[in-house]
Amino acid sequence: MNEKDSVKSIGVFDSGVGGLTVAASIKKILPNEQIIYLGDLLHLPYGSKSEEAILEFTKAAVDFLINQDLKILVIACNTSTSVALDYIRELVDIPVIGVIRPGAERAVKMTKNKRVGVIGTRRTIESKAYKREIQSIDESIIVFQKATPLLVPLIEEGWKDHPVMIEVLSEYLKDFKDNNIDTIVLGCTHYPLIRDKVKKLMPGVEVVDSADTTAEQVKNVLTNKGKFNNSGLKYDYKIYLTDYTRNFEELARIIVGDSANSIEVVSLKYKQGKIEYNLI
Amino acid sequence: MNEKDSVKSIGVFDSGVGGLTVAASIKKILPNEQIIYLGDLLHLPYGSKSEEAILEFTKAAVDFLINQDLKILVIACNTSTSVALDYIRELVDIPVIGVIRPGAERAVKMTKNKRVGVIGTRRTIESKAYKREIQSIDESIIVFQKATPLLVPLIEEGWKDHPVMIEVLSEYLKDFKDNNIDTIVLGCTHYPLIRDKVKKLMPGVEVVDSADTTAEQVKNVLTNKGKFNNSGLKYDYKIYLTDYTRNFEELARIIVGDSANSIEVVSLKYKQGKIEYNLI
Repeated sequence: MNEKDSVKSIGVFDSGVGGLTVAASIKKILPNEQIIYLGDLLHLPYGSKSEEAILEFTKAAVDFLINQDLKILVIACNTSTSVALDYIRELVDIPVIGVIRPGAERAVKMTKNKRVGVIGTRRTIESKAYKREIQSIDESIIVFQKATPLLVPLIEEGWKDHPVMIEVLSEYLKDFKDNNIDTIVLGCTHYPLIRDKVKKLMPGVEVVDSADTTAEQVKNVLTNKGKFNNSGLKYDYKIYLTDYTRNFEELARIIVGDSANSIEVVSLKYKQGKIEYNLI
Repeated sequence: MNEKDSVKSIGVFDSGVGGLTVAASIKKILPNEQIIYLGDLLHLPYGSKSEEAILEFTKAAVDFLINQDLKILVIACNTSTSVALDYIRELVDIPVIGVIRPGAERAVKMTKNKRVGVIGTRRTIESKAYKREIQSIDESIIVFQKATPLLVPLIEEGWKDHPVMIEVLSEYLKDFKDNNIDTIVLGCTHYPLIRDKVKKLMPGVEVVDSADTTAEQVKNVLTNKGKFNNSGLKYDYKIYLTDYTRNFEELARIIVGDSANSIEVVSLKYKQGKIEYNLI
């Protein structure tokens, strides 16, 4: 490669298109960077599957992305971060940012009464990854967790503004009221899309999402390593998906607008121990 | 094999555990048969994925089942039937029963005003498979279709008796009221679990599900071919899943009770063009 490190890309991975909320936050504060996104639509949702399955899916996705000449890799999926982050860090030699540590740090900074709530998929919550990260920074913080697996299907069905969303959210959040939390972590990259509803249902409670906090973490790492893109070239998104349906394209469009025009479908297949990529 | 054809097994395939409703219906009317079930939990849900993805997943699953010494194969998944049934029939040399034709035939028999509603996953509805089957029997029947993708996540989350289920169902079914249907087809093998709610919301409307109608079709084929198990041996289920989570085991238990004790996890991997099976 003749390119300098600075003009290499930022890789962003998620099981679906929810991670585009993280990509959009990165784009907002680092507008000159090229973002290469991979959404593993073929295998979503990760949140209801086993750890073994998530490890295997994540490894294939990372193998694909790492071949795209990256300077940093973001695992923009809470489920995948909670299960596979340490494993991925051992596999690759560029910085790897998960979405859990940044959210945990922000929550620790925000809470005053040291009572924090976390919502996420079943697998993220069962992994206790947020609880562990938060308490590794301040062990006196009490973390209340709640698995909220219906939120992603509701968002993906286009019902984020439907009255049923409020009803489901109310049910999921009701224990947090008794728990007297003052901070809630949105532990899934889809959830920034319903941030306003969580805020309304939990008045006075700080809402922390993975998207903005992770984007800031990416900026910090690139700052420390002097790897911003100063080439003067203007970059945008390159979006790869492992399966294509119109429904998911529409959701991508809600999050990143016309940048969703760049979508390409890629097939990741294990073949004789190696992964093959076929653009379809 | 020294066994006679009659003591071979009935293979049943679904993307998840919803197809166990079909298996349970078969067991009810054919209690002496051995049923070998495969649920492709690793790749569920099929309903929101592309046709190409569903074809590939179904082929791998059928390859596994067909090696279990079957006398008949049931594709107990509406999405898979709507996309892959003809393809599978070309691949194997035993009878293959899908869940759509039996439901369509029953609906044609039940409707008096020739106005039939169908609910199912996005992919099943987009395939228009029920509409096509029903109108191939009686082209004067008007078929109204509605994709209802939130019902499976609600059932899998254990919210089948939650007030939100009624609210979501009401929203999905409201157009059918104006359409003046007298028969509704539950075009997904999860939906027999909410049959009572559909009946309550659509009073006076006949509710047709895939489970009972498909089981009768299996009985008819075995009758015609003289392949009932008369060995005197008492068989039960053998349940294979391609991924394991506690949540899905609990759902399986709701449908087939203690027969869920027989669950084994199997890994289906393409390797050098062939599929390998590893019991985990």
